[in-house]
Amino acid sequence: MFSGSKIADLEDQVNSNMAKDTFHNIVRKSLEKEGWVITDDPLEVEVGGVEMYIDLGAERLLGAERLGEKIAVEIKSFVSPSNLSVFHLAIGQFFNYRIALEVQEPERVLYLAVPLGTYRDFFRKQFIQLVIQRSQLKLIVYDPVEEVIAEWKK
Amino acid sequence: MFSGSKIADLEDQVNSNMAKDTFHNIVRKSLEKEGWVITDDPLEVEVGGVEMYIDLGAERLLGAERLGEKIAVEIKSFVSPSNLSVFHLAIGQFFNYRIALEVQEPERVLYLAVPLGTYRDFFRKQFIQLVIQRSQLKLIVYDPVEEVIAEWKK
Repeated sequence: MFSGSKIADLEDQVNSNMAKDTFHNIVRKSLEKEGWVITDDPLEVEVGGVEMYIDLGAERLLGAERLGEKIAVEIKSFVSPSNLSVFHLAIGQFFNYRIALEVQEPERVLYLAVPLGTYRDFFRKQFIQLVIQRSQLKLIVYDPVEEVIAEWKK
Repeated sequence: MFSGSKIADLEDQVNSNMAKDTFHNIVRKSLEKEGWVITDDPLEVEVGGVEMYIDLGAERLLGAERLGEKIAVEIKSFVSPSNLSVFHLAIGQFFNYRIALEVQEPERVLYLAVPLGTYRDFFRKQFIQLVIQRSQLKLIVYDPVEEVIAEWKK
């Protein structure tokens, strides 16, 4: 019924979902190590008739707080055959979540969390840097091996 | 090995790929009916070390021209269990393609093509309208049944 490559695609999908959970938990732990309190997991965002948090297939947003500072974190594992596809989706979610947060809870600042390896290999490309600048993307670079935040890019 | 729901997911994926081609051809034809000449299918966009047109899983961009006016069209079928997921990806691609086009070919204007039914049911939601405003999204609303452009939203 399905060709070998389709089954491989499906296995990729299953692996990708496992990776999502794993990386989500790593970012959670890494933030806690820096003194952040996880207040919402998932962080529910609903605005103008659209419930963002029941979005099928999307990573769940994390809400955290430290010394009165509030953040929302969109976590990407970049475990995929195409970094560019993940990046497109990440940018779209970031843009939409940011607008939704501005309506719902304007004091909460949105970050995109990306693994260190992907940051080094992919995010330093000239075009990606241009998009980061233009979209005023704030990044948390996390180290999935050491389970720490490697860098905040505000 | 795989549960029924996973096989259903895979079938959705196969149907979705077929829908992509069908809707792509409908938009192509609809533009031609309005006197546009299709000049690039796919339109290749490469900038800063990133080749956008070999993006896995993404719809291919269409390049068209009429009376010296040049457009690029990102076509979405919205055949998916989640309009919101497709919308996230559409916005990310639109944002990234627009930046890439500004570098590569600034005179070419990017449009997102969406089917009439999705436009009526989903794009009129308050939040989606807010995103359209904020991202200065230009839309081509196409009628997949009549195979014509229903509306240009510039």
